[in-house]
Amino acid sequence: MEALDYHAEERRKAEFNLDEMKIVWAGSRRTYEISDRMARLVASDPVFRKDNRTMLTRKDLFKDTLRKAAHAWKRITDLRLSELEANMLRSYVDQPAFTDLHWGMFIPAIKGQGTNEQQEKWLPMAYKMQIIGCYAQTELGHGSNVQGLETTATFDPQTDEFEIHSPTLTSSKWWPGGLGKVSTHAVVYARLITGGQDHGVHGFIVQLRSLDDHLPLPGITVGDIGMKFGSGAYNSMDNGLLRFDHVRIPRNQMLMRVSQVTREGKFVQSDVPRQLVYGTMVYVRQTIVSDASCALARAVCIATRYSAVRRQFGSQNGGPETQVIDYKTQQSRLFPLLASAYAFRFVGEWLKWLYTDVTQRLQANDFSTLPEAHACTAGLKSMTTSVTADAIEECRKLCGGHGYLSNSGLPELFAVYIPTCTYEGDNVVLLLQVARFLMKTVSQLGSGKKPVGTTAYMWRAEHLMQCRCEVETAHDWLKPSIILEAFEARAVRMSIACAKSLAKFSNPEDGFAELSADLLEPAIAHCQLIVVSKFLEKLQQDIPGKGVKKQLEILCNVYALHLIHKHLGDFVATSCITPKQGALANEQLRLLYAQVRPNAVALVDAFNFTDHYLGSILGCYDGNVYQKLYQEAWKDPLNDTVVPDGYLEYIRPILKQHIRTARL
Amino acid sequence: MEALDYHAEERRKAEFNLDEMKIVWAGSRRTYEISDRMARLVASDPVFRKDNRTMLTRKDLFKDTLRKAAHAWKRITDLRLSELEANMLRSYVDQPAFTDLHWGMFIPAIKGQGTNEQQEKWLPMAYKMQIIGCYAQTELGHGSNVQGLETTATFDPQTDEFEIHSPTLTSSKWWPGGLGKVSTHAVVYARLITGGQDHGVHGFIVQLRSLDDHLPLPGITVGDIGMKFGSGAYNSMDNGLLRFDHVRIPRNQMLMRVSQVTREGKFVQSDVPRQLVYGTMVYVRQTIVSDASCALARAVCIATRYSAVRRQFGSQNGGPETQVIDYKTQQSRLFPLLASAYAFRFVGEWLKWLYTDVTQRLQANDFSTLPEAHACTAGLKSMTTSVTADAIEECRKLCGGHGYLSNSGLPELFAVYIPTCTYEGDNVVLLLQVARFLMKTVSQLGSGKKPVGTTAYMWRAEHLMQCRCEVETAHDWLKPSIILEAFEARAVRMSIACAKSLAKFSNPEDGFAELSADLLEPAIAHCQLIVVSKFLEKLQQDIPGKGVKKQLEILCNVYALHLIHKHLGDFVATSCITPKQGALANEQLRLLYAQVRPNAVALVDAFNFTDHYLGSILGCYDGNVYQKLYQEAWKDPLNDTVVPDGYLEYIRPILKQHIRTARL
Repeated sequence: MEALDYHAEERRKAEFNLDEMKIVWAGSRRTYEISDRMARLVASDPVFRKDNRTMLTRKDLFKDTLRKAAHAWKRITDLRLSELEANMLRSYVDQPAFTDLHWGMFIPAIKGQGTNEQQEKWLPMAYKMQIIGCYAQTELGHGSNVQGLETTATFDPQTDEFEIHSPTLTSSKWWPGGLGKVSTHAVVYARLITGGQDHGVHGFIVQLRSLDDHLPLPGITVGDIGMKFGSGAYNSMDNGLLRFDHVRIPRNQMLMRVSQVTREGKFVQSDVPRQLVYGTMVYVRQTIVSDASCALARAVCIATRYSAVRRQFGSQNGGPETQVIDYKTQQSRLFPLLASAYAFRFVGEWLKWLYTDVTQRLQANDFSTLPEAHACTAGLKSMTTSVTADAIEECRKLCGGHGYLSNSGLPELFAVYIPTCTYEGDNVVLLLQVARFLMKTVSQLGSGKKPVGTTAYMWRAEHLMQCRCEVETAHDWLKPSIILEAFEARAVRMSIACAKSLAKFSNPEDGFAELSADLLEPAIAHCQLIVVSKFLEKLQQDIPGKGVKKQLEILCNVYALHLIHKHLGDFVATSCITPKQGALANEQLRLLYAQVRPNAVALVDAFNFTDHYLGSILGCYDGNVYQKLYQEAWKDPLNDTVVPDGYLEYIRPILKQHIRTARL
Repeated sequence: MEALDYHAEERRKAEFNLDEMKIVWAGSRRTYEISDRMARLVASDPVFRKDNRTMLTRKDLFKDTLRKAAHAWKRITDLRLSELEANMLRSYVDQPAFTDLHWGMFIPAIKGQGTNEQQEKWLPMAYKMQIIGCYAQTELGHGSNVQGLETTATFDPQTDEFEIHSPTLTSSKWWPGGLGKVSTHAVVYARLITGGQDHGVHGFIVQLRSLDDHLPLPGITVGDIGMKFGSGAYNSMDNGLLRFDHVRIPRNQMLMRVSQVTREGKFVQSDVPRQLVYGTMVYVRQTIVSDASCALARAVCIATRYSAVRRQFGSQNGGPETQVIDYKTQQSRLFPLLASAYAFRFVGEWLKWLYTDVTQRLQANDFSTLPEAHACTAGLKSMTTSVTADAIEECRKLCGGHGYLSNSGLPELFAVYIPTCTYEGDNVVLLLQVARFLMKTVSQLGSGKKPVGTTAYMWRAEHLMQCRCEVETAHDWLKPSIILEAFEARAVRMSIACAKSLAKFSNPEDGFAELSADLLEPAIAHCQLIVVSKFLEKLQQDIPGKGVKKQLEILCNVYALHLIHKHLGDFVATSCITPKQGALANEQLRLLYAQVRPNAVALVDAFNFTDHYLGSILGCYDGNVYQKLYQEAWKDPLNDTVVPDGYLEYIRPILKQHIRTARL
């Protein structure tokens, strides 16, 4: 008997080789295979069940997370998984946990900022999870402004110790994941004070809890900061608060790779370049972009599959109604997001290459590309996460009323995703960094300094300031060179316009503050250009598989042209394109949507999500949506009894007028 | 001793009379006084506490809702509150409950669609809550397309009864609030079938549960549909599912004001105009617009107050850092939303007038303004709720990391608000209705049919198609006539451009389907014009109170100019304004932000929210944010014990390597 598949007809329509597309999405055949194996390993294990997660109390949810983390660790050790496999397994468990911070922040901080000696001491324990660590930077009163942190680490030469202290309420550590209930250790960021002098913020390894009974050590107050957005979601994480009352640690627990404090209390800088920090930032932000494409893909997968199941209006002669995916209003909202998921995937891939490139250069003491790479990753982190957060909610709306049900998966996906817009650099603050870099690049053009990497196009500013878009028909908008030049011209013209406005201020910093809102716009234009250009570069590669390249070309064009439509004001006001050309782009966009339509379900199948990972009835592989919704409803605790708890106290007295007659 | 007020300095800066502004916001002194009294009554009553709501399980939350509803009813009857007072009291309880549907949908449905006889029978019981009712329209498979509902009501002339039946899975009623666990009765929408003929969808009063023991009556399957978005939020509501297995009701329980079925089973239409339905829609959507301004005001109040407390970067010589409300990036995101809250308030006020006007005309059998009024309210419902939903999330982002905490109030406000974009007409479907109306209006211009109401400006299409914007300086953008003409010209030009594109299709319906995504744009432009013009009209009124009018003028200009900036592509591509004029609008916007800044906190104080209703630590009146966050954290159940539940099973074994050594 053939398995039930409501999407079978949609899948037959696809005009490309799905297996090859899955490999393109995964990045390589090897990654695809590992990823597929890990996803199935998690999906088939009952401990990793997550379909009842949103119904748990905070305490039960937290305990469930501890259980999953312990079980994941058991599987990782039992199966002797590689680091890549272990990371994938944890990501498919799909539940924020203290282990994210232990592996993702605590260990990398020691690796990046610890001396060889410190690494030899701490890393083996951390790798074996004999200690569990977190990353205690953010404070109640300080997030973005790391240099403003208030926690102090005062060197006491008498005892060769640092005294870690929280001098104010606002200096309480606040937010670090894994801190509240689990971590035994933390890398704590504090102001280093020696001999009465403040040397700015540095990292210190501090033990927080006893390894015997898990109780906080003397002088340490630690706890959970409370409930966060949504049900399930990040409530599985013990984001914590932490206060120090004159806590003493040995001097050698300051992370001393870049700066040291000597036995005498002298502050010295090593010859290790401080720019190394930026290398780490490039790494972390590259993973965030890669995660953005994945989160966006999940939302798009759910909305696309459900849009092919859902029918509404348009019944002819009593026949079935129209699939909502056939409506142009639905396509014009959904398909650009589908295209964005692919676009972000490829720019994320490229960022991986960039990180390797930056690392190699750093090792060769070549810092020339670092500022550009840093600005580029900051901008892409900001742009892709903002778009993804909004897109998840848009996909929820595209699922109509049923998208509001927890078991659509979209509410929790949204709730768990949105902090990405704030952590590792607030998205607006990051865009301002990009803007600052662009303004600097513009100002140096005159002095003949050639811009590098993703800003190289600015070297052609003279041409781009006066070039005319050659589009005469809708079809012209399919030419890569035309698209690329339009985006380059727009970015350069907006940057130069801002630079001119800035030049009117006698104090550049005043100008930057006054015009900061306007400066965000060229920064976004620049980031969009990067994504478009990397997608176009991807298409230059040899892409095997029937029809695969063709589909990617269509998606690339959808991505670029929907941006032109969305930011028409930018393109037209800078005279990069005419209103008429804008209308032609829109016309071409409609033609492209019609080409995406038959491939839409297969294009989201290519993400290769298991039903477990996707966690959505609306997006389930077989499309048997209504039956599953109906069955699932009965599992809600409210349905345990036909007559609800509270009926006798609060409903019956109203119906029987006991309330009213009591007083009247 | 003076009460603590971190905002005292901000409040002293205000340049207008706060008490008068409160009255402007409330609409009248009387409304202000009642509203103030009801808000305090709720805030001071411990039963209405809601600060622990997001921590409750579904069952406990639901029971808490039943308790609050019963207590509210007791207060309403004890204090003999008027209908207005009772409505306000319920809204200040601020927790979705079955009573919303009983009072807001069940009773109005009987009033609107029941005969006098039916009203006399059912309304007294409903008013006394001897029966509790809901509104069972939406089905698992049908939302927007009401005419596609599948539930049947088949007349049986033998017994003079209707047989209500759910013939398919997708015909299950799904979503109605109050249905799942509480309602004893429902107005059920079903296809009327008499003598084998389908007469379309009509309403029927059906008893669902026994008034003795609350058990479902024979043939009725009823339950809750499960968890929804977020914690707290709409999970207090028993949105329900309902299936009928050949359930019989007397013929006189069909709502027969507009259509009747005779004893013989003949279907007849009364002479009561069907357009009455539209009158009700105008009413319901008007209240939604008014609620939108309130929800937006809450989010803006929280973000504004917290932005005045939060400081980050910019410390000079060790002094305090800069309040984030002083950053232009913050202002350019926050102040347009503040202006929108006021703008939506005033357009909501005007919609109240429109409803009265429509009602009076209907009574005089004048249907001439009804289509325009219907399109206008549909469009404003769509536009204001979409903006508000996005704005709540934007306000959360404006609060940085702490906005993600449940006790910021913003996560729950978002979760509880967003269904508004879907219910009472999906926002995209509604905009398409507006677009259809605009296209019709344009097409009739040639035949000399004069457009009425909010489309009256289209009569001047000839002028508006070729007028030139007279702005030469940023200051020119403060002239009401210039703003109004720019918005009118943009709306007309976009409508006419779409009409021309449509004209190229031989079949208008094909054209409408193909261009539907583009048609949304003139619809939005038209709605924005309405809001701008009603704000400008409001400023023509006599507004007492020092500085009040001046503030409103500033807000009106912020509202209009931020839209020009946001939709620059519309204005420039249609040549309504030049790129240079667009830049001047932006320049003026910056100047306006500087004028809003000193008044910002007072402008949100004018909403007169109690701390109870606002439900946000970040937005609390006295601004003592950090201390409250810290105190609140300790109340989380996870902090009941220092060592978390699950430590012995899941953390200690990892630390002690019991997992690893077990197998290796």
